[in-house]
Amino acid sequence: MEVSIAVSKVRKYATSNSGDTVEVIERPNGGLSVVMADGQSSGHGAKWISTLVVRRVITLLADGVRDGAAARAASDALYTERKGKVSSTLNILSVDKQTNTLVITRNNPVPALLAVDEVIQVIDEPSRPVGLYRDTRPSITEVSLVPGLTVLIYSDGLVHAGERTGQSMDILACLRVLLDSEEPSARLIADSMLETAWKLDEGRPVDDITVVALRVTSVIGDSVRRMAVRLPLDS
Amino acid sequence: MEVSIAVSKVRKYATSNSGDTVEVIERPNGGLSVVMADGQSSGHGAKWISTLVVRRVITLLADGVRDGAAARAASDALYTERKGKVSSTLNILSVDKQTNTLVITRNNPVPALLAVDEVIQVIDEPSRPVGLYRDTRPSITEVSLVPGLTVLIYSDGLVHAGERTGQSMDILACLRVLLDSEEPSARLIADSMLETAWKLDEGRPVDDITVVALRVTSVIGDSVRRMAVRLPLDS
Repeated sequence: MEVSIAVSKVRKYATSNSGDTVEVIERPNGGLSVVMADGQSSGHGAKWISTLVVRRVITLLADGVRDGAAARAASDALYTERKGKVSSTLNILSVDKQTNTLVITRNNPVPALLAVDEVIQVIDEPSRPVGLYRDTRPSITEVSLVPGLTVLIYSDGLVHAGERTGQSMDILACLRVLLDSEEPSARLIADSMLETAWKLDEGRPVDDITVVALRVTSVIGDSVRRMAVRLPLDS
Repeated sequence: MEVSIAVSKVRKYATSNSGDTVEVIERPNGGLSVVMADGQSSGHGAKWISTLVVRRVITLLADGVRDGAAARAASDALYTERKGKVSSTLNILSVDKQTNTLVITRNNPVPALLAVDEVIQVIDEPSRPVGLYRDTRPSITEVSLVPGLTVLIYSDGLVHAGERTGQSMDILACLRVLLDSEEPSARLIADSMLETAWKLDEGRPVDDITVVALRVTSVIGDSVRRMAVRLPLDS
């Protein structure tokens, strides 16, 4: 069994800094976690907030703190630091080798999609961002790690793609089409989603967009763990 | 201009935990850093040490601390915590968008390779691991970010590949062959290196092996930032 994760991320048009932050870290008891945050507003201020939230969460996860407790702590920390005036969404997607589960933690009104083979479940129970209230709890979904799982989490920039031109993005339909194709890779799913949004926004995204796709497959490849990063440099 | 980074990592044969830790994080003023540590001995204890060192460094880098100061702080922290009895190698490879440079920080007797186009420089000035002495300073190499740069950093498992069977790995020669081919990707470089080592070790690595390859190219692709992780699960 193998887990592959792909992250694709683009900035709002004509801004120098994405307000979205994503980091992937190793879990101390095996497995890994993807932590994604989207800070309120855009540009430098938003980046500062999302970075604060992600850093807080990864520090706690690295100490072995459970995802839900880490999300609550990040919320309390932001609430304390900014007196409840600033919010950030937060998603944690973990492959936990200790419990052999996949854990989706959401402090985000934007849904997450979870598919087992081609059957897609929309995870949309009410959830609010961190930082605005004391004792904000995340919505947590935990499933066994089995081949055929697909998870898609994304920032609201994906949801709002096309709105400037009166169009809209049907993320569920896009994922359905992708899953109907032959074994789509996490990379294909993330890139296709972003490309669809990019076209709807006519190449000028109205917001920062981040897409994270995770796939669990029964592939028995080599035992090599791989990571890759591609960073375009403006110059 | 575009930077691509590939990490390939494999465990010592018949161990459940790699003593090597690698994390990639975003730098607060733009760009990113790869932090790699190899803890003394192997298995669980080594993992604990390398994780401690990497976490300490990424927390400092995220606060905007310079790479050299972060490495010294990690050394002092490990020295204090383990009374100078435990060591870890440490490499930091940073793409710093603020200074537009590539910074290679080494606390590792194992060299790093830096190539400009096909001309390879071996960075091997004496350097010792962190944790054994007070005030251990890293060796730092800083070059301008220009297309055609290649950097290879690796743990000593790559250097010692083949020793069990009386063979040896010529890393410099391998890189030369790869750079002579048409525009090798960071992924190709990292995977080829690991594969060569794997064969020399006859599929049973005598030590944890981590290879990090970085390439700067003049490619003008899309403005999408991408990250990918592939994690084999034993089951």
